[in-house]
Amino acid sequence: MARILKITLAYDGTSYLGWQRQAGSPSIQEHLEAALSRLDGAPVVVHGAGRTDAGVHALGQVASAHVTTSLETATVRRALNAILPADVRVLAVESAPEGFHARFSATGKTYEYWIFEGDVQPPFARAWSWHHPWALDLDAMQAAAALLVGTHDFAAFQSTGTPVRTTVRTMRRAEVRADAGPAGPGPAPDGRFVVIRLEGDGFLRHMVRAVTGTLVEIGEGRRRVDSVADLLASGDRSAAGPTAPAVGLVLLRVTYGN
Amino acid sequence: MARILKITLAYDGTSYLGWQRQAGSPSIQEHLEAALSRLDGAPVVVHGAGRTDAGVHALGQVASAHVTTSLETATVRRALNAILPADVRVLAVESAPEGFHARFSATGKTYEYWIFEGDVQPPFARAWSWHHPWALDLDAMQAAAALLVGTHDFAAFQSTGTPVRTTVRTMRRAEVRADAGPAGPGPAPDGRFVVIRLEGDGFLRHMVRAVTGTLVEIGEGRRRVDSVADLLASGDRSAAGPTAPAVGLVLLRVTYGN
Repeated sequence: MARILKITLAYDGTSYLGWQRQAGSPSIQEHLEAALSRLDGAPVVVHGAGRTDAGVHALGQVASAHVTTSLETATVRRALNAILPADVRVLAVESAPEGFHARFSATGKTYEYWIFEGDVQPPFARAWSWHHPWALDLDAMQAAAALLVGTHDFAAFQSTGTPVRTTVRTMRRAEVRADAGPAGPGPAPDGRFVVIRLEGDGFLRHMVRAVTGTLVEIGEGRRRVDSVADLLASGDRSAAGPTAPAVGLVLLRVTYGN
Repeated sequence: MARILKITLAYDGTSYLGWQRQAGSPSIQEHLEAALSRLDGAPVVVHGAGRTDAGVHALGQVASAHVTTSLETATVRRALNAILPADVRVLAVESAPEGFHARFSATGKTYEYWIFEGDVQPPFARAWSWHHPWALDLDAMQAAAALLVGTHDFAAFQSTGTPVRTTVRTMRRAEVRADAGPAGPGPAPDGRFVVIRLEGDGFLRHMVRAVTGTLVEIGEGRRRVDSVADLLASGDRSAAGPTAPAVGLVLLRVTYGN
């Protein structure tokens, strides 16, 4: 009996060249397809909601797949986790309605970018945060982030060379917060995390990392808060800040329906 | 001018064969000695408070070293962190009084052992927690841990083949708690951490991990709470539980004086 599975995944992207299958390099998609094909006894193709780049993490990536197995969803989850490497974990497996597609059915995505602000980055946090040794102006970063909310042309925050139909996206929320941790076991580190959280209907290639690079320049006092409005108007990628490294980026959640 | 430095370190032990220098394999001690020797312009030997085993972590290891550099302690810290690999971080450098020795001057140590209790271990937590998929009886583990407090012969919890003058140690605190996280960025995982925290004047080889293996058997209902008293009386290592894996163990703090 053919059916569609909705699979929610968490992964530490450190060892992967990204979500997408590509010749000769390890990808999350490839691992998941291999594991599902083993369960199904036939080749299975999976579609991911977001094509996370090399080194980018996920705590709520969603994939969809057509399968024929009649195993219960809880059994599929257990079997997948037994097959997959420890840095890729299946959090949930659900039966999805006819026509469900992880990417095309998605109505929103939430990303977080984690920055460690302090002299000494805690060793366990280096896997999922970018080290920024100097103090950032959180108020300025928050004010700048607020200017991103709404429907805008985000061309200035897109990596070049990626053809897309439109660079207009709707940013539903854009917030910057200080976060005491977590840094793993033990006492709180001498420093804090600065977390940028973006929620929108979709994101352009490297968009969260370009926004992060820009907000960090604002937090450093090297760029004015209202320059964000100019950037959006200009559509000029070279006028925005640098692309922040992959290590701090996490695909937190994909939403469907309302 | 010769002086003694007290160096507090955090490290992710995953990639190391332990604290202690040994031919042909990476150790924390070796990295720290190489970095200090570079600063000092002459070979420097460091002494660690605890010889953490392969794969064991530290968030408050302490080392001492005789140096001649006249650099300020804050400068030494910064320089060491610039030289050391990112998974070994110097948290603090202080000038220590004449006669200070990280191991012999220590009056106590605190270890934590982190267990993830739940179906799916969060990917980022696999670096510093042991995965236990089934529910543990926390009350039973707490009651058993309480029996360890006091001055006892801990021979039953010592790895064989290690000659020591005495296997009597004083356990000042032994507690088991549930901890919601932290598991890295993102939402709380579906599950919880069970954390064993032991504080004492000293620990035998593999003692925390043998205590953990025994407490976990008690938490699984496979061993009676009061068997801990019998174990202490027997001194029989083979009667205690297995040695828990290194991955969940963290040297949290070393105390000096009161």
